[in-house]
Amino acid sequence: MEQRVSLVTLGVADLSASRAFYRRLGWRESSVSNESIAFFACGPMALALYGRAVLAADTGITDAGPAAFNGVTLAHNVRHRDDVAAVLAEAVAAGATLVKPAQDAHWGGHHGYFADLDGHLWEVAFNPFVPLDGSGGFHLP
Amino acid sequence: MEQRVSLVTLGVADLSASRAFYRRLGWRESSVSNESIAFFACGPMALALYGRAVLAADTGITDAGPAAFNGVTLAHNVRHRDDVAAVLAEAVAAGATLVKPAQDAHWGGHHGYFADLDGHLWEVAFNPFVPLDGSGGFHLP
Repeated sequence: MEQRVSLVTLGVADLSASRAFYRRLGWRESSVSNESIAFFACGPMALALYGRAVLAADTGITDAGPAAFNGVTLAHNVRHRDDVAAVLAEAVAAGATLVKPAQDAHWGGHHGYFADLDGHLWEVAFNPFVPLDGSGGFHLP
Repeated sequence: MEQRVSLVTLGVADLSASRAFYRRLGWRESSVSNESIAFFACGPMALALYGRAVLAADTGITDAGPAAFNGVTLAHNVRHRDDVAAVLAEAVAAGATLVKPAQDAHWGGHHGYFADLDGHLWEVAFNPFVPLDGSGGFHLP
């Protein structure tokens, strides 16, 4: 697994209120944002705001409150579709828990999730619309 | 507040086990890591592993379980010491909750914390040992 964080996603209760808060802080949304998710480009990575319930659902976890889901995911984007399953297998071999096996994602990519030893959730994702740069950077417009 | 994430810190139950897990994944620690914290440079930002209890204590929150503390902090590093109080004030004006006012940190920097609308914790930090680059990048060795 290469050493990078491509995306930090914060689960939020009220997406409109939350994106307005970050805008008031001076943050500007990427043009790839849409009604259901707000993206903020931060150089070679990005921050996203996404409804807490849909974020939990994306991981496959039942959001039974903060003990079940801490409301944050990290994404590690990969260069090729097949890298998703390979990185998930590598993580499991290192002691991670497989949370969601590699599969096509509703947004047109391919992804899966693992949890580290403390349950911190990592999405491993192939995004065909935003290819990584030579050093693995994930640059949103 | 400029648009960047300088550091993602994951609170962990067993730092030795956790740093060994990330090493097994192929991640290599920065030379600024020490016994109590593991840093992994990721281009212009970094990932850190820190004991969950000490991470909660650093924010000033009592770690009364996952409902009180979700185990993750984001840091936004600033260029000047006085920027810490200024960014915290800006966040509060935008609707954030002040969690820890600007103050000197035990590691020799100056910092404070705010919580966004969902309680996601942001540290605002001035680190005199790792100045930001021209575009705000936080590059650990």
